[in-house]
Amino acid sequence: MKQFINTKESLVTEAIDGTLRTAGGRLARLDGYPHIKVVVRTDWDRSKVALVSGGGSGHEPSHAGFVGQGMLTAAVCGEVFASPSVDAVLAGILAVTGKAGCLLIVKNYTGDRLNFGLAAERARAQGLKVNMVIIDDDVALPDLPQARGVAGTLFVHKIAGALAEQGADLDTVTSTAAKVIAGVSSIGMSLDSCTIPGSPKDNRIPEGKAELGLGIHGEPGVEQVDFANAKDAMDMVVEKLAPHIGPGPHVALVNNLGSTTPLEMAVLAEELHKSRIGGQIRWMIGPAPMMTSLDMRGFSISLLPVGKAEESALLSPVAPTAWPGCHAVGQVAVLPLPDGLAPIAPMPSQNAESRDFIERCCRILIAAESDLNALDQKSGDGDTGSTLATAARALIQALDRLPQADTTQLYRAIGLELSQTMGGSSGVLLAIFFAAAGDASANGQDMIGALKAGLQRIQEVGGAAPGDRTMIDALAPALDALSDGVAAAATAARAGADATAKIDKARAGRASYISAENLIGHNDPGAEAVARLFEELVG
Amino acid sequence: MKQFINTKESLVTEAIDGTLRTAGGRLARLDGYPHIKVVVRTDWDRSKVALVSGGGSGHEPSHAGFVGQGMLTAAVCGEVFASPSVDAVLAGILAVTGKAGCLLIVKNYTGDRLNFGLAAERARAQGLKVNMVIIDDDVALPDLPQARGVAGTLFVHKIAGALAEQGADLDTVTSTAAKVIAGVSSIGMSLDSCTIPGSPKDNRIPEGKAELGLGIHGEPGVEQVDFANAKDAMDMVVEKLAPHIGPGPHVALVNNLGSTTPLEMAVLAEELHKSRIGGQIRWMIGPAPMMTSLDMRGFSISLLPVGKAEESALLSPVAPTAWPGCHAVGQVAVLPLPDGLAPIAPMPSQNAESRDFIERCCRILIAAESDLNALDQKSGDGDTGSTLATAARALIQALDRLPQADTTQLYRAIGLELSQTMGGSSGVLLAIFFAAAGDASANGQDMIGALKAGLQRIQEVGGAAPGDRTMIDALAPALDALSDGVAAAATAARAGADATAKIDKARAGRASYISAENLIGHNDPGAEAVARLFEELVG
Repeated sequence: MKQFINTKESLVTEAIDGTLRTAGGRLARLDGYPHIKVVVRTDWDRSKVALVSGGGSGHEPSHAGFVGQGMLTAAVCGEVFASPSVDAVLAGILAVTGKAGCLLIVKNYTGDRLNFGLAAERARAQGLKVNMVIIDDDVALPDLPQARGVAGTLFVHKIAGALAEQGADLDTVTSTAAKVIAGVSSIGMSLDSCTIPGSPKDNRIPEGKAELGLGIHGEPGVEQVDFANAKDAMDMVVEKLAPHIGPGPHVALVNNLGSTTPLEMAVLAEELHKSRIGGQIRWMIGPAPMMTSLDMRGFSISLLPVGKAEESALLSPVAPTAWPGCHAVGQVAVLPLPDGLAPIAPMPSQNAESRDFIERCCRILIAAESDLNALDQKSGDGDTGSTLATAARALIQALDRLPQADTTQLYRAIGLELSQTMGGSSGVLLAIFFAAAGDASANGQDMIGALKAGLQRIQEVGGAAPGDRTMIDALAPALDALSDGVAAAATAARAGADATAKIDKARAGRASYISAENLIGHNDPGAEAVARLFEELVG
Repeated sequence: MKQFINTKESLVTEAIDGTLRTAGGRLARLDGYPHIKVVVRTDWDRSKVALVSGGGSGHEPSHAGFVGQGMLTAAVCGEVFASPSVDAVLAGILAVTGKAGCLLIVKNYTGDRLNFGLAAERARAQGLKVNMVIIDDDVALPDLPQARGVAGTLFVHKIAGALAEQGADLDTVTSTAAKVIAGVSSIGMSLDSCTIPGSPKDNRIPEGKAELGLGIHGEPGVEQVDFANAKDAMDMVVEKLAPHIGPGPHVALVNNLGSTTPLEMAVLAEELHKSRIGGQIRWMIGPAPMMTSLDMRGFSISLLPVGKAEESALLSPVAPTAWPGCHAVGQVAVLPLPDGLAPIAPMPSQNAESRDFIERCCRILIAAESDLNALDQKSGDGDTGSTLATAARALIQALDRLPQADTTQLYRAIGLELSQTMGGSSGVLLAIFFAAAGDASANGQDMIGALKAGLQRIQEVGGAAPGDRTMIDALAPALDALSDGVAAAATAARAGADATAKIDKARAGRASYISAENLIGHNDPGAEAVARLFEELVG
C-alpha cells in the first residue's frame, strides 16, 4: 500500500517536526527523539493547571493539534497506534507542571492507563500534584465494563481546557472532566478499515456492508451491518446512542475518522439533525477530522448533555486551529432569489432595415448547414452547421419580439435569444459577443466598435486568440477590414478562414484534442461560417 | 463504491444545508434549489467590493467553506465536477453586488469561463460593475496555452479578500488578483484517483506508481512516475515547480487533495522545507485540505512570490474556519528534557528485618514459579510464574542498594526496581502499587494503609475491581484482614483466590479474551500468587 511516508520508523518524528514547523511558533517539542515525542505550548508559564494528553499516533489532529491556549498544555505522542512510554509521559508532565498541578487525560486502553498511571506516580514522588481521568465514551460494547475511549475525548480537552485557562484549581478541573466523562457517549461507523503504515491493508468489510461500533486502531466493529445510504447509516448510529442520552439538550461532535469527504460529512451532519434525536442536538462541533483513525473511511458521533457551564466552556475561543468551533445548530437561512434573474424582455419595435439584415444573415447560415456539418466532421462532431442553422431559424421566429429600432437593445436581445436557443459553448460565446457589443453600443460605440468589443470579450472569456483555429481567425480580420466596406471584410474573412486549414494544432475548443493529420487541409468550420456570412452579404 | 450519500442528485444540496446548519449563522443560501446553489455571507451590506467564486462541487472546503469576512462574499456551487449555470452565477452576483462592484474569481475551465462570463455580461447589462479574473496556475502541462486552475486559487481568494475587506476599489482588487494569478504556480501528485459519486472507481494508477500533474476532476496526470517515498515524491514536485519561480521569498500552499492522512501531509511539508527550494519558502499555508478532489489520495503544492503587500494580506485574520492560516516557516523549537526523568537512586541503608522480609517474599514467589506457570497455561500464555520469579530474583540482587531503613523510600525504590526489570502490564501495575504505597507512607499511613492506597491506585489505573478475576480478588480481602494478623490475611487471600475458579468471565486483563469453559475450575494465577505469598509468610 502506497503512502507518502519515508520509513515507518521515522514517520511520527518527521510528522511532528512538519507540524511544528508550520505552526507559527505556537508549539515546541522536547529534545527526546526518537523515544520521547512530546509537543508543548510555547506560551506556557506553569501558573495554571496543566492538561497533558496523548497516546498512540495516527489520530491526528489528536493530540498535538489540540495543544495550545484553551486546550492541551502538552501532547505525549507514541508511535502509530502504540502507547507512549512511561518516560515520555513523565517528561511531558515535568515539562509543563507547576504548583497548580496537572491533569492527565487518558483514553481507556490498557497501555495508556498503565504508562500514564506510572508516570503520574513518578511525578507525584517528585512532589507534583497530578490527577488522571480515564475516558470511556464508546457505547459499542455495552457488556464490556471497560468501554474504550474515542472521540468524546475532545469534549474533555475543550471543557477542562477552558476551565484551566480561566485559572480553576486542579480539583475543579478534575471533577469537571469526570462529569464530562460520565455524560459522554460515542459510536463510530466505517465503510472501510484503515491502512496501517508498513502493514497490508485489511479489506475485511465487503461491498454493501459497513462496520458499526469500530475502534480507532483498526479494531473490527461490533457488527457488520448492511449499508444502504447516509440516512440509514446515521439512523443505525442514532439507535445505538439514543438509549444513553437523557431528555435535555446535547452537543454533538461529528468526527471524520479519516478519509470521508467533506461532502459526505456534511450530508451526515444533516441526517443527524433530521434524525429522531435531532431535536435534542442544540450544538454541533464539526463535521471535521478530530480523532481520526489514519485513513479510515468512516465517522463517529459523540454526544454530551449541555448545561450553561458546558456551553460556555465549549464556545470559548482557543488557539489550536484544528478545533473547528462549537456552533448552535440552526435553521438553514434561505434568502429570496434576487430580482433581475429573469431578463426583462425588451420592448419590441419595428425597423425594416434591421429586420431584413438579420433575416438575411440567418438565411445565409441556414443555407450553409450541410456544408458546415461536413467540414466539422473532419475536426469535430459534425454539428457546427446544425447548431448555427437551428439558432438562425429560432432567431427568425423571434424577429417580431426584437427591439429592431433600438440598436443597443437589439444587440442584447439577440444575445439573450441565442443563449436561450443555442446549446453548448458556442451558444454562450455568441451570447457574450452580442451582450458585450450591446454594452459598447450603449457606451457610444458605432457598429464596428461594438462588434470589436464583442470580439474582445469572447477572446477574454473563451481564451482563444487569432491563430488558435477558431471562428476568431475569420472574424478578427473581417472586423478590422470592415471600415473599408463589407467586400473588404469578406476578402479578409475568406483569407483568415482558408489560413486555418494550415494550422495543425488547435489551441482552443474541441478541436484541440484532434491530431494534426486530421486538421491539416480543412478550414475550421466556425471560421468558414464567418467567411460564408460576409461573402454572401456582399453577394 | 460505498459512500455516505443518499442520492447523487441530492448530494450537493444536502451537503450545503449540512454545512450551513453547522456554520453558526455566518452563512445563508439563496432560495433556488436545486438549480441555483449559492452560498452567501450573512454579514454583508454591499458597501465593499464583492468577491464571487465557485465552480463544480467536490473540491470542499472550496468554495462555500471560504465564504466569510476577509475571503469570498458568495460561492456559486455546481453539481460534482460540473460548472454552475449562468443563472446560478448571475443570482450570486445580483445577491451580493452593490455600487462598489464585484470580482468573479474563476478557474480556467471552459464551462466555468463561459457560464461566469455570460453571467457577468448579464449583470453588466443591469448596470453592475463586474470584473472577472481567470486562474491558470497548473504548471503540469507547459505546452498548453490554457493552463488549468487548481489550488493556487486560494491565494486569490485570500489576498483579494483582504483588499476588498479593507475597502479597496474594484480596479485595485482586480489588478491585485491579476498580479497574484501571474505569479502563482501549482502542481499535484496522487497515489490514487478519486471516487466520483455514482461512477465506478477508476483504478488506473498501479501499485508502485504515482501520477504527477493531475487535474482536480479526476483528469489523469501528465505522467505516471515511479513512487518510492515521501522525499522522492516531493523532489519530483519541486523539479516541476522550480523553473517557474524566481529567486525571492515565496509562500507555499500545501494542499491535501482529499484522503492523504495528516501524518503524511506533515511529512510532505517537512520534505518541502528540506527540498532544494526550501530556503525560498518563508511562509506556509497548511498542510490542510483546501482545494480537494473528492477522496483523492494526493497533495498539491502552490507557490507565490511574496512582498510586503502579499504578506500582510495573507496574514490578516478571516472568518472562514476552513482557512488554516499562513505561518512563517521556522526552525522547530526544541526544548531540553526536564530534570527528574532519570530517577534519583535512593541512598542505600541497612535494616536486617526489612531485608529478610523482602528476601523471604521473593523466595516464596521464586518457589511458586512452575506452579503459577502451569495455572497460567489454562487462562493465559503460561508466563505468570516466570514473570514474578524473574522480578523476585532481580529484587534480591538489588537488595544492597535499597533504602532498607527508610520505609517510605523503600516502597518507592521497590516500585522503581520492578518497573525496570518486569516487562508488560503486571510490571507497571506493581510499580504503581509500590509508588502509591510510598506516597501514602510519606503522608503518614501505616503499612496496611499504605498497601491499601497502592491497591486503590492500581484499581483506578488498571480498571479492575474485585470479582474481575485478577490478583485483586486475593489482595483486597487479604489487606482487609491484615489488621487481624498475617494468618487471617492468608485465610482471606486463599478464599479469594479459590473463588476466582468460579468466575466464568474475566473482566480485565488478558484472560478477558478466554471463553468461560477454559476459565471455570482454575484459580486466576495472579490471585493464586497472592494467596501463596500470604500462606507461606504464615508458614
